[in-house]
Amino acid sequence: MVARIAIASDHAAIDLKAALAGWLRDEGYEVIDLGPVDPASVDYPDYGYKLARAVSEGRADRGVALCGSGIGISIAVNRNPAVRCALVAEPLSARLAREHNDANIIAMGARLVGEEMAKACVDAFLTTDFLGGRHQRRVDKLSHPALEEQPA
Amino acid sequence: MVARIAIASDHAAIDLKAALAGWLRDEGYEVIDLGPVDPASVDYPDYGYKLARAVSEGRADRGVALCGSGIGISIAVNRNPAVRCALVAEPLSARLAREHNDANIIAMGARLVGEEMAKACVDAFLTTDFLGGRHQRRVDKLSHPALEEQPA
Repeated sequence: MVARIAIASDHAAIDLKAALAGWLRDEGYEVIDLGPVDPASVDYPDYGYKLARAVSEGRADRGVALCGSGIGISIAVNRNPAVRCALVAEPLSARLAREHNDANIIAMGARLVGEEMAKACVDAFLTTDFLGGRHQRRVDKLSHPALEEQPA
Repeated sequence: MVARIAIASDHAAIDLKAALAGWLRDEGYEVIDLGPVDPASVDYPDYGYKLARAVSEGRADRGVALCGSGIGISIAVNRNPAVRCALVAEPLSARLAREHNDANIIAMGARLVGEEMAKACVDAFLTTDFLGGRHQRRVDKLSHPALEEQPA
């Protein structure tokens, strides 16, 4: 069951982060806000790594990653082989990320996606089940912990 | 100078891969097609890892990664800390991926993005320069080779 949602951003996305955190709490989820809390300039990799670790260590069931475009923080999060982060801008991708990729973190760009669209993406992400089957083998292949173990 | 473009996909994206490869050759680029070549079902992580390696080892200057949604292969590619892959569906994100993130691989979903939109994304990706400056420090932080070296 999805109960605890960790959320992190960079300075460009603190307003969207606050809006999503409040909405998720209203929806009954426990929200773990990993920052930042003020608009001072920060580096998105620091917050992406922190968020990935919260999910990979089981402190959160799912994660929401935000930056200006969503690109930088999605790259940072996916450096952690225990998580699977989908960068999305509309709910169909959020649904497919769950059905096919068992994504446990969703990334969005606060400068590109409006608040209501972001909520629709998070809603699809939180309420769609992984399909398993042939998709499981592929998801397993995303968990190779080291480059040396990846197929050439 | 960007001259050699590696391209890889899964079975869901072989038609878009062929279209982009032909167009890129017409535009004067050397295209390294890493497969697959027929529509038999394959696992996107295999092709994502292969593409990331081609770019990280310098056999290609840039990469194009395709699957049904673009999500799965973008996750696979970003497991390699020497590359930075942006999943995009429109050219603004492709431009920002270059300007802010020095992305060297672009991912797209063949079931979500039409051929002309995909070409516009690739064009922005290939013709936009990295801005450097404050963005360089953040890009450097994406290159941490091991989870142990990531900030907590």
